[in-house]
Amino acid sequence: MSVNSDAAVALGAERVDVAFLGPRGTFTEQAVAVLEPEGSQAVAVSTVQQALDLVHTGGARSAVLPFENSVEGSVSVTLDALIRGEPLVIVAEAHVDVRFALLARAGTKLAEVRRIATHPHAAAQTRAWLAAKVPRAEVLPETSTARAAQMVAAGDYDAAIAALVAAEQNNLHILADDIADRPGAVTRFVKLSARVAPPTPTGADTTTLVAFLRSNHPGALLELLEQFAARGVDLTRLESRPTGEALGQYCFAIEANGHIFESRVAEALTGLRRCCADVRYLGSYPRADKVRHGVPETASESAYLAARGWVDSLTLGE
Amino acid sequence: MSVNSDAAVALGAERVDVAFLGPRGTFTEQAVAVLEPEGSQAVAVSTVQQALDLVHTGGARSAVLPFENSVEGSVSVTLDALIRGEPLVIVAEAHVDVRFALLARAGTKLAEVRRIATHPHAAAQTRAWLAAKVPRAEVLPETSTARAAQMVAAGDYDAAIAALVAAEQNNLHILADDIADRPGAVTRFVKLSARVAPPTPTGADTTTLVAFLRSNHPGALLELLEQFAARGVDLTRLESRPTGEALGQYCFAIEANGHIFESRVAEALTGLRRCCADVRYLGSYPRADKVRHGVPETASESAYLAARGWVDSLTLGE
Amino acid sequence: MSVNSDAAVALGAERVDVAFLGPRGTFTEQAVAVLEPEGSQAVAVSTVQQALDLVHTGGARSAVLPFENSVEGSVSVTLDALIRGEPLVIVAEAHVDVRFALLARAGTKLAEVRRIATHPHAAAQTRAWLAAKVPRAEVLPETSTARAAQMVAAGDYDAAIAALVAAEQNNLHILADDIADRPGAVTRFVKLSARVAPPTPTGADTTTLVAFLRSNHPGALLELLEQFAARGVDLTRLESRPTGEALGQYCFAIEANGHIFESRVAEALTGLRRCCADVRYLGSYPRADKVRHGVPETASESAYLAARGWVDSLTLGE
Amino acid sequence: MSVNSDAAVALGAERVDVAFLGPRGTFTEQAVAVLEPEGSQAVAVSTVQQALDLVHTGGARSAVLPFENSVEGSVSVTLDALIRGEPLVIVAEAHVDVRFALLARAGTKLAEVRRIATHPHAAAQTRAWLAAKVPRAEVLPETSTARAAQMVAAGDYDAAIAALVAAEQNNLHILADDIADRPGAVTRFVKLSARVAPPTPTGADTTTLVAFLRSNHPGALLELLEQFAARGVDLTRLESRPTGEALGQYCFAIEANGHIFESRVAEALTGLRRCCADVRYLGSYPRADKVRHGVPETASESAYLAARGWVDSLTLGE
Repeated sequence: MSVNSDAAVALGAERVDVAFLGPRGTFTEQAVAVLEPEGSQAVAVSTVQQALDLVHTGGARSAVLPFENSVEGSVSVTLDALIRGEPLVIVAEAHVDVRFALLARAGTKLAEVRRIATHPHAAAQTRAWLAAKVPRAEVLPETSTARAAQMVAAGDYDAAIAALVAAEQNNLHILADDIADRPGAVTRFVKLSARVAPPTPTGADTTTLVAFLRSNHPGALLELLEQFAARGVDLTRLESRPTGEALGQYCFAIEANGHIFESRVAEALTGLRRCCADVRYLGSYPRADKVRHGVPETASESAYLAARGWVDSLTLGE
Repeated sequence: MSVNSDAAVALGAERVDVAFLGPRGTFTEQAVAVLEPEGSQAVAVSTVQQALDLVHTGGARSAVLPFENSVEGSVSVTLDALIRGEPLVIVAEAHVDVRFALLARAGTKLAEVRRIATHPHAAAQTRAWLAAKVPRAEVLPETSTARAAQMVAAGDYDAAIAALVAAEQNNLHILADDIADRPGAVTRFVKLSARVAPPTPTGADTTTLVAFLRSNHPGALLELLEQFAARGVDLTRLESRPTGEALGQYCFAIEANGHIFESRVAEALTGLRRCCADVRYLGSYPRADKVRHGVPETASESAYLAARGWVDSLTLGE
Repeated sequence: MSVNSDAAVALGAERVDVAFLGPRGTFTEQAVAVLEPEGSQAVAVSTVQQALDLVHTGGARSAVLPFENSVEGSVSVTLDALIRGEPLVIVAEAHVDVRFALLARAGTKLAEVRRIATHPHAAAQTRAWLAAKVPRAEVLPETSTARAAQMVAAGDYDAAIAALVAAEQNNLHILADDIADRPGAVTRFVKLSARVAPPTPTGADTTTLVAFLRSNHPGALLELLEQFAARGVDLTRLESRPTGEALGQYCFAIEANGHIFESRVAEALTGLRRCCADVRYLGSYPRADKVRHGVPETASESAYLAARGWVDSLTLGE
Repeated sequence: MSVNSDAAVALGAERVDVAFLGPRGTFTEQAVAVLEPEGSQAVAVSTVQQALDLVHTGGARSAVLPFENSVEGSVSVTLDALIRGEPLVIVAEAHVDVRFALLARAGTKLAEVRRIATHPHAAAQTRAWLAAKVPRAEVLPETSTARAAQMVAAGDYDAAIAALVAAEQNNLHILADDIADRPGAVTRFVKLSARVAPPTPTGADTTTLVAFLRSNHPGALLELLEQFAARGVDLTRLESRPTGEALGQYCFAIEANGHIFESRVAEALTGLRRCCADVRYLGSYPRADKVRHGVPETASESAYLAARGWVDSLTLGE
């Protein structure tokens, strides 16, 4: 993977394979390495919106962005951009282990650290460790953990909370490794592209979508969920997101086991489309963990085939 | 309508248009008049099974049988024959007002009536009137109200509870008219034929079927109903019927608004077929009362068409 | 058990223990023997309504009536009397094996049998046997199988389909035994009394009730069933019964596993009462088959106790 | 309201009335002014956790924290602290209009602005305005909009996006007012206290809670929602939040119309507690907008009272 500078993109360079939330040295770059084949052209951009815009305008074939974290939950900026912006679809996902280290210039001692820079999400995930080990240090927000490390190298802060890779890239020392309060945190990244036919089903797929209820009447959400249940489709995530109109106005980001090429999912989507004011389909794609969730016998492809054949025979009077 | 004798049928006469539960002079004959065109060949038989057998063997094109009464409920013998016997479908229905009269030979006075013959259903529907007006009379069962009237004419009983038409046919006097405890009773008759394509939808149709649950697990019945609810199909009747295997083993006779040619009904039937151990489809046909039940906007044919077009476009990446 | 004559009752005899649907020699009498202690005073009456009236007026402590048959389904006359009449409750049930025999006077041969009397339910359950063995015989309805046997003894018919006990009582011969089309048929009888506190729960109980929906809106029946499902109560039977007002106007006879003394059943009844136009409670009583249906862990009495204690503590701010 | 410095708190000052997410000049301070009576002692702290800790340790009677924004959605740090930390309850809420201005030192012209400081949420809500009006400016994160304004005053940045009140407090000029991309944004703040009895119901109340499903079986979420639906309780918000254990492990933050002192809410909570592995109750309190959502007639307090009285009478045999 070769990473272009923003400048190259701004100058109208040729179309690149992937735009990702930079700078180099973040977990997102690790996700790109997983999701893109060897030799892809990648460009690091500084906001989620820039990455999406590059895909919309054709400057990049795809974008890789953080979508969800096992500790922090949804990455709202990505989710909301997908909900409100021009339509894109998720075509792949990757899980990256999130392991934070405290990095400083050579010679800095832990006891001397007073000003620590990092991204707010990283600060949130190391809060207890910081309170216990450097209780008097001030934690200051930067736009990325990679940038925080760069600024420590430049002498702007005493230390940075960042990925290990940032130590090497910025010639920093590791004051402490694996400092997250909950070890084993994972961030889920998604690869987005303009509308394309979904990738082939693997038997271990996720479908992501956003539903806008027709009205806020009691039971409207229950009806929505019954559209899935009646087809044997299991939800894995359901999250109110503000539509932005007013407090209390929500749409629902939904993830389900299964692929739109399966009859049960296609029929559930049809039902959802009928019952909702609007539905935004965000893709069917392989699960990064490859875990296959059993399909109920009554909702299998062969059950659908047999049932439809039966109804057809009835309409013909056979 | 010309009514053949049983003998003609037994002797292997040509195929008739309709077999009905006789004898002449019953409410069923009135239903035949409604359901069959002028000039049809009709044959009166003495049991429900004989009528069905004639259709199965090709001796009759159709059978007209009582199916439900507004006071007495389902006519179990018809329903169970449809559930357990060779498959037939309902192609039409008729509602006949049930008006009972007390008939006797000329000269009989009400106060003298001691032995009254009638069909048990008619006895049930006039119980309070009898208790009030002829408290000392004994009510004796006959196989039909028409036969009861014939036997009064023959001198076997003092009076019969029967339809008015039986007075004329048997030269009897009307001791009292309109004696049902609940005036306005209606019996619903169905016209059955061998498997044929359903009649054209009218916008005011009923679909009748029998569902056999896959297992008796808690909530199985609820799941069955959700298959209808998720498609905006409203049930009008739901009745446990014994499968005959053992006490507590039931199937469910179900009637719903709508026609199998409507997407919402076809999809609900598909769902039911997947989820149930077995489903017996008993037909989609026009309601006798022509009452149109509004289809929810979200389940209209155009809503289905639009939603399916949308899902198709997604699978193509459009 | 001593059985009084109707006359004794009509003459204002003292209060008896139980009224049952006679005459002697029917399956109902067998049920009385199961349900009543040795030495009870029993009176045979000729209609369901007479039995119920005796309980209402205090002439009998209880009534024993057929309620359901494993082949024929509900006994509508009993069910409707409970739905529409003065309130009574079921306090016990009994299952009686239904075994039919063909009885005739000494000397009658099967091939000579032309006129067979029986109750219509018995006719329905032996239809195939009769068609195969005595295809030319006519089957004539009587008010009970016991009366049919009496009339055979009196010479009015050639044979009767009745219980074996009727052979002995009427000095008849058994032309054929066990002639039901489906062997193993069972009839369920209930013992009814005026409103009393329910019998002690046994862990294997049934609750019977009738629900009148508030309106016929789509999904009303689904809402009704959800009142049971939300409390982990499993339905065993659900049957539309006409209210008698008009075709298409139904109430729902419902049977559920569990006892009103259990929190889950009491709460489901509360929910039903709130959501329905009317609910008629017909009793909680031990199952005749003593089969215990597991209560979901989440709906056990201890789960209810713990959950209510928790809510109470919250309201107190503990 | 008098605002203490952090120092005072750190030095073990007396118990204050309220701790809030500082510094002064943020929208949170406006919420405190709404939620606390005149003359309350308030202390500004620098993290959500510090505010909560003060309540837990008794240093503050309550905490006021941002909970949700009409554009950005949940404030995860507050929600997660309530989910995972020591139990607290919400006793009141306030809605504060969020209106952003671009503030600079006297003499700075819009065209000269290169480095803009603000809180990331404020950056997100003014993204389009910034791209249109100051496309070449860099936006740098600070821990609060108030601190961003202070640092502009100190000369560290060219401009700050902050509340208008920060202009006055820091002697800054208003380069542009009302610059949010979606005007009319509102932030919802909550007042938290240690476990106390809930405030009196007002008829316009919200109940907030977190449910942990017993298992991830298909339909588990549907069952949870049915606990509310069966009692006529309408949900207003439902959001998966990671439990922090692993990707795909969620609990559900739920908000519903109604108050735990209402039978329908108390019974729904009981049902939830039975069916879930765990439930954390976060309070019943008046809605800031005072909007009364109609209670279905079937779930009113009088409907509950009548239904329970009915069930009680049945258990007594009345």
